[in-house]
Amino acid sequence: MTRRIPRATVARLPAYLRYLDSLGPGRQTVQSSDLASASGVNAAKVRKDLSYIGAAGVRGVGYDVEELRALILRKLGLSTDLTVVLVGAGNLGSALARYKGFDNRGFHIVSVYDIDPKRVGKRIAGIEIRHLDHLEEDLRQTAADIGIIATPASEAQGVADRLTGAGIPGILNFAPTVINVPAWATVRQVDLATELQILAFYLRTRREAGATQARTQKRRPG
Amino acid sequence: MTRRIPRATVARLPAYLRYLDSLGPGRQTVQSSDLASASGVNAAKVRKDLSYIGAAGVRGVGYDVEELRALILRKLGLSTDLTVVLVGAGNLGSALARYKGFDNRGFHIVSVYDIDPKRVGKRIAGIEIRHLDHLEEDLRQTAADIGIIATPASEAQGVADRLTGAGIPGILNFAPTVINVPAWATVRQVDLATELQILAFYLRTRREAGATQARTQKRRPG
Repeated sequence: MTRRIPRATVARLPAYLRYLDSLGPGRQTVQSSDLASASGVNAAKVRKDLSYIGAAGVRGVGYDVEELRALILRKLGLSTDLTVVLVGAGNLGSALARYKGFDNRGFHIVSVYDIDPKRVGKRIAGIEIRHLDHLEEDLRQTAADIGIIATPASEAQGVADRLTGAGIPGILNFAPTVINVPAWATVRQVDLATELQILAFYLRTRREAGATQARTQKRRPG
Repeated sequence: MTRRIPRATVARLPAYLRYLDSLGPGRQTVQSSDLASASGVNAAKVRKDLSYIGAAGVRGVGYDVEELRALILRKLGLSTDLTVVLVGAGNLGSALARYKGFDNRGFHIVSVYDIDPKRVGKRIAGIEIRHLDHLEEDLRQTAADIGIIATPASEAQGVADRLTGAGIPGILNFAPTVINVPAWATVRQVDLATELQILAFYLRTRREAGATQARTQKRRPG
């Protein structure tokens, strides 16, 4: 039914959405060049990305902000809210449960699980931490769309098995280990070091450009 | 000096590196198709990415694992280790300080800062949390490459100003707000909701494919 959208385009849609969300309420249209500088690709690539999702811009005018925003939300599957269960209430899990950026993007953390008796029963961002033993029973009563794993690496596969076993189709894994899920489910692996590595690349490039410039200046006859 | 490497290629290098790191020590060569399935692009794109960084594969044999690994590390600026200071020792900051995936990728967190008297003086992952007042003095004695901001959004710009003011060229911002840095510095904004949004896209696509299949089956004469 839908034309297949390239993975690289999908990966840029959240950045476009973030930019649209950052615009003031008075702004009615946006140009591909604005979206380009916000997302790190050129304007032609932005127009191609947006054509994949069926957005029609008007030459010289741009894209309607509200229409484009609604279209990206729909394509990302966010036009209806998604419910999330979070497993692991350590530092990272607690940070994720309290993260302000999820709710206003339509992701609602409905329950938090842990196995540590010191954590179970406490509240985090208003949600009571339940023992992981209740997971299957809770999910039988209220299904969820996504399970976030924020456990130690050693526990991640076991937790993934239980989440998919209870019918959750999407897993976001923050534990630093690769996990496997059944073919009908989808898993994404988050690696917090990735962003540091990309930053390091730009630092190196700039350092080398600076060094070249310094050498060039030295070589000038004084 | 270096050919300009496209941003999309840079963003995929960490995934290639992660895949190479996951191979056992006996593995000597790797094919572009292996790297493709690990990074979510096709093999032709992998070969193009690797040609940008100057990697030469042999047809039918592939790429030498150790050579490719060293080349990506060098291009990412990771062949020499980078020092990192972390500001904000709340849940997210603590999780980052304890994250196992940084050290073995050449990122060394050398100091952690906070302003909360309940946190200052405690240790986290073996590092004493220092009051932010010491930041400039510490950096005069030992320079750092990267500053990670894990503060509330309201504090992020002020912290970024102090980090760049003390000469740190690279900023990784986890606070959910856009910050500005001087032109000579580089900032990357991490948005933890991005991965959830990408996951949501694939869930929606699969749900729609499933619904189409179900409708098609229903329509079959029974």
